[in-house]
Amino acid sequence: MNKYCFLNGEIIDSESACVPIDDIGLLRGYGVFEVIKTYNKKPFLLSEHLDRLEASANYLGIIIPNNREEIVEIIDKLIGMSFGSEFLVRIVLTGGRSVSGMDFNGHNPNFFITLADVPVKNEEQYTNGVSLCFVEHQRFFPTVKTLNYVFPIKLKQDIKDGYFDFLYHFNDYVLESPTSSFFLVKGDKIITPKDNILMGVTRGFVIKIASEMFQVEERDVLLEEINSADECFITATNKEVLPVVKIDDIVIGNGLVGEKTKKIIEKYNQIIQNV
Amino acid sequence: MNKYCFLNGEIIDSESACVPIDDIGLLRGYGVFEVIKTYNKKPFLLSEHLDRLEASANYLGIIIPNNREEIVEIIDKLIGMSFGSEFLVRIVLTGGRSVSGMDFNGHNPNFFITLADVPVKNEEQYTNGVSLCFVEHQRFFPTVKTLNYVFPIKLKQDIKDGYFDFLYHFNDYVLESPTSSFFLVKGDKIITPKDNILMGVTRGFVIKIASEMFQVEERDVLLEEINSADECFITATNKEVLPVVKIDDIVIGNGLVGEKTKKIIEKYNQIIQNV
Repeated sequence: MNKYCFLNGEIIDSESACVPIDDIGLLRGYGVFEVIKTYNKKPFLLSEHLDRLEASANYLGIIIPNNREEIVEIIDKLIGMSFGSEFLVRIVLTGGRSVSGMDFNGHNPNFFITLADVPVKNEEQYTNGVSLCFVEHQRFFPTVKTLNYVFPIKLKQDIKDGYFDFLYHFNDYVLESPTSSFFLVKGDKIITPKDNILMGVTRGFVIKIASEMFQVEERDVLLEEINSADECFITATNKEVLPVVKIDDIVIGNGLVGEKTKKIIEKYNQIIQNV
Repeated sequence: MNKYCFLNGEIIDSESACVPIDDIGLLRGYGVFEVIKTYNKKPFLLSEHLDRLEASANYLGIIIPNNREEIVEIIDKLIGMSFGSEFLVRIVLTGGRSVSGMDFNGHNPNFFITLADVPVKNEEQYTNGVSLCFVEHQRFFPTVKTLNYVFPIKLKQDIKDGYFDFLYHFNDYVLESPTSSFFLVKGDKIITPKDNILMGVTRGFVIKIASEMFQVEERDVLLEEINSADECFITATNKEVLPVVKIDDIVIGNGLVGEKTKKIIEKYNQIIQNV
């Protein structure tokens, strides 16, 4: 975390920022969040992230205590007060304090915004692609970005050597990675699952830029389609567009980063350099 | 929460007790917990709860910073310092602070113990029984008592009028309630699911006392067995043994609290009065 953060109406020193131990976010994982990346110190796709935050909060019945303009101002202010070139902005909203540990009052949430430095990019992963492992899983409330990530954090401790992350499938369909959206390329088409997944903000943006160059299909993706995929990649705020060249023992295409993936990465990089 | 709590080595005023906002329990629900009830101001089945806490912590790779004797002493001390006749003791252990929000060091957890007053028992529910609603669901890591309760808390907001709680089923099998274990009585037998559920501490104790009077089967329970059940009940630390007389539209037995359930409740009450 960077030196300053926002917590319940105030900008304070991050080291003194804490929430009461009877917060239902802490006791029960009952809360929602967003992570936004800056380029040129500007939060990228902020409006889309705030749309999703609002939808998630609304679903769990938690009232966001600051309006959108205030949140934008708070983030700007934090960026202005922080050292570092680019940031990951994390916005967290919990259900607030709870007497029984089950009930809560959505009108008294804990709401905080922190900045962290962007981890150094591992360029080799973008040049050579990464490998994923299949795991059978589907999020609960898949479209809601809740605080619950017990499953992927535990899972990651046991990932096989040489594998970067997991790829969830359920009932014969490919879904998403724990913190990324999944795409595959087949002939002329860019294909991505559309149901029972978190609606990735970067996913939405990549669909937009890919649609200008290729045919994009949002639809159910059968697990067996991986076998005939020419290219695969995952997308996420922090990972941007990351090529996937192997899934379990299946080598994707010729095992190298695909041409269409490269074109999408190129386009993505052009845009973020000029925001 | 009562006035005093234990947090990371110290007994402090509960109102000032908080955890840093980069705690992975808060950011990701990555942590475990137990709730223990006192009778005659003595924590009931404490040893069994601490066994499960250790197993849960071990599964998630978090080191409990105090040994068992210390935890027993801390709870005793908190009880001695608190007003009130009986308490719910809550023990919470998180993965501690996290830089990335995904990684953590299990050796620096946040560990706290709070006391709360026991809510007044609704005697009518024990005399007349309660109703449950079916919902298709199975916990992830069902045997591990993690902090993740987003699903049941959200679900409970939409429970049908007149229903007390939910009953999870999955793949045609009955499992458990969100915070209780499930039992049914059929002829001479007391039957309870044994797989893909949290191993309830009260469940284990009820199996023990029921076994002295009846034949008890721990086994997979088909959803359709509900139709021919003579009696049903749920068990939990805070609910003890609570009769169930209706599940969705299925009236259990004659719709009244069953005789075997009553005998188990009677036995349970005898024991807790004399601890």
